[in-house]
Amino acid sequence: MITPELLHPQSIVVIGGSNNVHKPGGAIVRNILQGDYQGTLRIVNPKEDEVQGIKVFHDAKELPPTELAILVIPAKLCPESVELLASEKGTKAFIIISAGFGEETKAGAAREQRILDTCERYGAALIGPNCIGLLNRNHHSVFTKPIPSLNPQGVDFVSGSGATAVFILESAVIKGLQFNSVWSIGNGKQIGIEDVLQYMDEHFDPNTDSKVKLLYIENISNPDKLLFHASSLIRKGCRIAAVKAGSSESGSRAASSHTGAIASSDSAVEALFRKAGIVRCHSREELTTVGCIFTLPPLAGKRFAIVTHAGGPGVMLTDALSKGGLEVPKLEGPVAEELKSQLFAGSSVANPIDILATGTPEQLGITLDYCDQRFDNIDAIAVIYGTPGLTTLYEAYEVLHKKIGECKKPIFPILPSLHTAGPEVAEFLAKGHVNFSDEVTLATALSQVMRTPQPAPPEIELFGVDVPKIREIISGITDNGYVSPDIVHQLLECAGIPMVPEMVSDDKQTLIDFANRTGYPVVAKVVGPVHKSDVGGVTLNIRTPEHLALEFDRMMNIKDAQGVMVQKMLKGTELFIGAKYEERFGHVVLCGLGGIFVEVLKDVQSGLAPLSYGEAYSMIRSLRGYKIIKGTRGQQGINEQKYAEIIVRLSTLLRFATEIKEMDINPLLADADDIVAVDARILIEK
Amino acid sequence: MITPELLHPQSIVVIGGSNNVHKPGGAIVRNILQGDYQGTLRIVNPKEDEVQGIKVFHDAKELPPTELAILVIPAKLCPESVELLASEKGTKAFIIISAGFGEETKAGAAREQRILDTCERYGAALIGPNCIGLLNRNHHSVFTKPIPSLNPQGVDFVSGSGATAVFILESAVIKGLQFNSVWSIGNGKQIGIEDVLQYMDEHFDPNTDSKVKLLYIENISNPDKLLFHASSLIRKGCRIAAVKAGSSESGSRAASSHTGAIASSDSAVEALFRKAGIVRCHSREELTTVGCIFTLPPLAGKRFAIVTHAGGPGVMLTDALSKGGLEVPKLEGPVAEELKSQLFAGSSVANPIDILATGTPEQLGITLDYCDQRFDNIDAIAVIYGTPGLTTLYEAYEVLHKKIGECKKPIFPILPSLHTAGPEVAEFLAKGHVNFSDEVTLATALSQVMRTPQPAPPEIELFGVDVPKIREIISGITDNGYVSPDIVHQLLECAGIPMVPEMVSDDKQTLIDFANRTGYPVVAKVVGPVHKSDVGGVTLNIRTPEHLALEFDRMMNIKDAQGVMVQKMLKGTELFIGAKYEERFGHVVLCGLGGIFVEVLKDVQSGLAPLSYGEAYSMIRSLRGYKIIKGTRGQQGINEQKYAEIIVRLSTLLRFATEIKEMDINPLLADADDIVAVDARILIEK
Repeated sequence: MITPELLHPQSIVVIGGSNNVHKPGGAIVRNILQGDYQGTLRIVNPKEDEVQGIKVFHDAKELPPTELAILVIPAKLCPESVELLASEKGTKAFIIISAGFGEETKAGAAREQRILDTCERYGAALIGPNCIGLLNRNHHSVFTKPIPSLNPQGVDFVSGSGATAVFILESAVIKGLQFNSVWSIGNGKQIGIEDVLQYMDEHFDPNTDSKVKLLYIENISNPDKLLFHASSLIRKGCRIAAVKAGSSESGSRAASSHTGAIASSDSAVEALFRKAGIVRCHSREELTTVGCIFTLPPLAGKRFAIVTHAGGPGVMLTDALSKGGLEVPKLEGPVAEELKSQLFAGSSVANPIDILATGTPEQLGITLDYCDQRFDNIDAIAVIYGTPGLTTLYEAYEVLHKKIGECKKPIFPILPSLHTAGPEVAEFLAKGHVNFSDEVTLATALSQVMRTPQPAPPEIELFGVDVPKIREIISGITDNGYVSPDIVHQLLECAGIPMVPEMVSDDKQTLIDFANRTGYPVVAKVVGPVHKSDVGGVTLNIRTPEHLALEFDRMMNIKDAQGVMVQKMLKGTELFIGAKYEERFGHVVLCGLGGIFVEVLKDVQSGLAPLSYGEAYSMIRSLRGYKIIKGTRGQQGINEQKYAEIIVRLSTLLRFATEIKEMDINPLLADADDIVAVDARILIEK
Repeated sequence: MITPELLHPQSIVVIGGSNNVHKPGGAIVRNILQGDYQGTLRIVNPKEDEVQGIKVFHDAKELPPTELAILVIPAKLCPESVELLASEKGTKAFIIISAGFGEETKAGAAREQRILDTCERYGAALIGPNCIGLLNRNHHSVFTKPIPSLNPQGVDFVSGSGATAVFILESAVIKGLQFNSVWSIGNGKQIGIEDVLQYMDEHFDPNTDSKVKLLYIENISNPDKLLFHASSLIRKGCRIAAVKAGSSESGSRAASSHTGAIASSDSAVEALFRKAGIVRCHSREELTTVGCIFTLPPLAGKRFAIVTHAGGPGVMLTDALSKGGLEVPKLEGPVAEELKSQLFAGSSVANPIDILATGTPEQLGITLDYCDQRFDNIDAIAVIYGTPGLTTLYEAYEVLHKKIGECKKPIFPILPSLHTAGPEVAEFLAKGHVNFSDEVTLATALSQVMRTPQPAPPEIELFGVDVPKIREIISGITDNGYVSPDIVHQLLECAGIPMVPEMVSDDKQTLIDFANRTGYPVVAKVVGPVHKSDVGGVTLNIRTPEHLALEFDRMMNIKDAQGVMVQKMLKGTELFIGAKYEERFGHVVLCGLGGIFVEVLKDVQSGLAPLSYGEAYSMIRSLRGYKIIKGTRGQQGINEQKYAEIIVRLSTLLRFATEIKEMDINPLLADADDIVAVDARILIEK
């Protein structure tokens, strides 16, 4: 549990604080002191009398009551120390920097557990063990550098790896990104990434709290909790981006050797992030670039004006924005001409607006005003402004600083002269701004932000799905394995998913009567063997009762045959829906066109059950072959609404039947009016 | 023409050199002086007696003979000045910084032309006008900053835009990238990017010349020349990467407004770069990252060891390398155990090799030796080494510096602590190394390098193609437009491309006799109308002479009908080949699977005619639907070799028939044995 004493302690004690700033025990004291901590800082160190100007307690027993304790002592001494502090000194928050716990040995894991038990007993918060600490505007309780600039509207950053947090901060500070808090959860014995989000969500104050959260995750231990609080925060106006490392097979191996992360399939992570509305990043660079974007006003639309005094970067930015689905609309007409008349001869206002290398700070200001107030077809402005080294840029960047404050549209500063105009860029950043030094990196991150959907609604779509009946059927199944066609039929019926007319029987005449009623042609499939096709157990296009009789006799002689299924043979576009239960995540639902689309092209979209209509439509429309669903080449499309409906209903069915570990409907046959499931398999494990 | 006087002048005069270093005329003098120019530097300035410590000539007429002249005076004064210098002062090289020429007005274009004429007459080189200048190890004749570190094995960088060159240098210098020369071609009136490459190619000395070339291109004015010299240089051991800006429609508009670039389709550029073996980049960041990769030994294989003292970046790098088609193989066995015994407890050697945050410089050295000498399944090493700020990194980076010198396998340094360990990184770079501060950016660039093929062989595949006959047929065509089926047939025959048996006639009995001979079913298509399907001019699956007679009568009544074509109806996998003539580039040849693959999925690969077998195979194998060509789902594949053969032969045909502006064969029908063209269209414009 996160306690007030962890966030704004009146007193802090560093157990193991020292004078050696090249060791964590000394560095953390230095950082707290340099961070201008306003409460009382105490040190416990048996060997020193004074540490960095502070009088030292030789034994923790001598301490007065202290709210937050930071432990930088050998692991084996920690449990006792925590017990003493919690029981006798009223300590309500612990940050354990020390390593040597569950990440190393079983004895370490036992120590960790003892510490947790103590904390739980006394209602104390526990960060770590094995972490770099916690840094916020009240206290800089980390032993590492860099310490970023702090700002109540800066980033809240939560990291599952301490060293990675440090390197992410390196990438952030050179961009000017400011922070509100940095959490390194270490082993996360009590407080994990999900718990930090929960706290932020449950205590969220829209007037004072930062709205930007960045996460570095190697292990999603509680996907439901992450989903719930991340989407809740986003609905309250926050913006969240995260790296989930270990997306490849080798990377997953690496992550699990690093933090003991339990591998989760990348499609499950992808689906979870999309459902939550979390912007997924894959690198430190991308995460911190998205973080910088988040500190600017959100984009109201896709249309960018590019203001530049160098042509090339403007062109590359235009290419990259266009590629990412954003727009750089042409500017023309009287307003554009009016602007042009205020720039030097040779300037271009067609967008990119090239004010030339000789363009003055004043012209920059005028151009920004036009983009903000006069061009209606512009939603955001990117400014590329560096120097060939003839003059300094203080004046230009002061104009940029002012306009960022005044303009309603977001302005993205791209200041490339990090070397030549280092001091000017530093001064600009010191005013609280960010800098995107590479325009294409910015564009890529922007399009990643734009592509991330809003959080899905938390409600489950129940209409048309008979949940009690589903539970009754599932409860009645006694064996693990693939369920019988009859049960498949019943379950799909409960979910309101239409199936092709079919009958299973081991009686020839019953089947012939059924075929005569339904109408020919029909399909016959053997029931029993799993891989029907391989054993000659599927015959299409049976047009007469005589042919059906013949096939029945033949199929009943196939090994393991228990009966024959006869279905009406339909035509239409093949679709596919699949689902796989992923431990802790629930069902990942896949959809796509059938046949080569799924088997050759892997043209499949995924979502996490239960799915809303919005999510289902988004999945369908993200398919590369979507044109076929919409209709193309003079062919009618299929009923997209019904496809979405089936995806949603299937996902609801699965949400209430977690015993289903795998399921697919393949194919469904679709035309402009209807969609029916032709074949389906369900694997149950209880 | 590039003259020796341009590259290593014994004397330089700056016409318009001044004391004001905030203007180009002053800044360029300062740069030349600070660049420790070893020849004689002269200044012409009517208003000053001394400029930056150099005695001034008030009039160019007073000058002694001078080899290189740099003009920083108003455009209108330039032609006369060039004339004087070339005719009277023996000047053999000009760099014209001044703007106000062809990029602005017609009068300017005339001035530019006059200057060119003078230069040509006197055999002088001309860089510019409207550029930042030329920088090499002999003279820093640019007016801009930054000036990168210079090194004979550094990058030769040629830029079509001056301001962009400056910003690319900004991105390069912070990575430690060193340069051999920087060329800003400006308007490129005499010397363009292609000419610089030609010079480097024709004068290439493998023992002394730099082997790394980076290009920033907005306008490929002579694709053939670029292709010829770039691929020649690469065959000689060089490595070339380039940004071609203006790849999107909006970007292309922006580029053409920036440098008057003539738009070229992005697929033509892509095809040209692949053919030449140029690594294509899309941003300054990517170009300079690839440049840094090029300064290290080439990769001998795909297998990376990652040595890190922070888990997270190792995981992200593993993910990114795997995604990019590179490998991070698991390390295990006795050698791995042996290494592990020399690291701290808790280290991992499974790859990533995590030596922990506490890992010492000595352990880093040992680990690098193991990767270089003991692990056979490793081709290259990435080292991630930063600091949480407790100690400095001088010692660790000294180890890295030594090992980079000693190890045979390339070592990629990833030093993330740009802020906290700024001085250490700077010292490391000063020893001549590069730094990839973001591991994922490195991985993305590496995979881009690995994906770029070797240059295609320059020979044209003539076997099986009857060039004289092709020329005879083309010469005989008098009208522009789509040629008749008969000519199409003849041209394909000349190229050895088999066509389905077919006959065109306006005589019913002739066609019926043909169908009887060939065998039914046949297809009938009206000849005359262009969009046959739209007018009911195609009938498939005709199985009797009577039906054929009926269709003949019907089709001959369609408007514009001149006859009917009867073809044998075949089955098979549909393929597609297309080609479009692109001004200056030649024919861009497209291939793919037919039907939805081309129409819905745009699954098409392109190459530039003439194509080699290697290129054709590479195109085919890059198709997303390649599995279908190879055979999948129990279906036999198609004869890939014949498909490649048809692509190659068609490209040869096109190479000798540039009058063909558009052509497609759609569909070809393919099975495991044969491929035949079923329908083809050829558009001729003379």
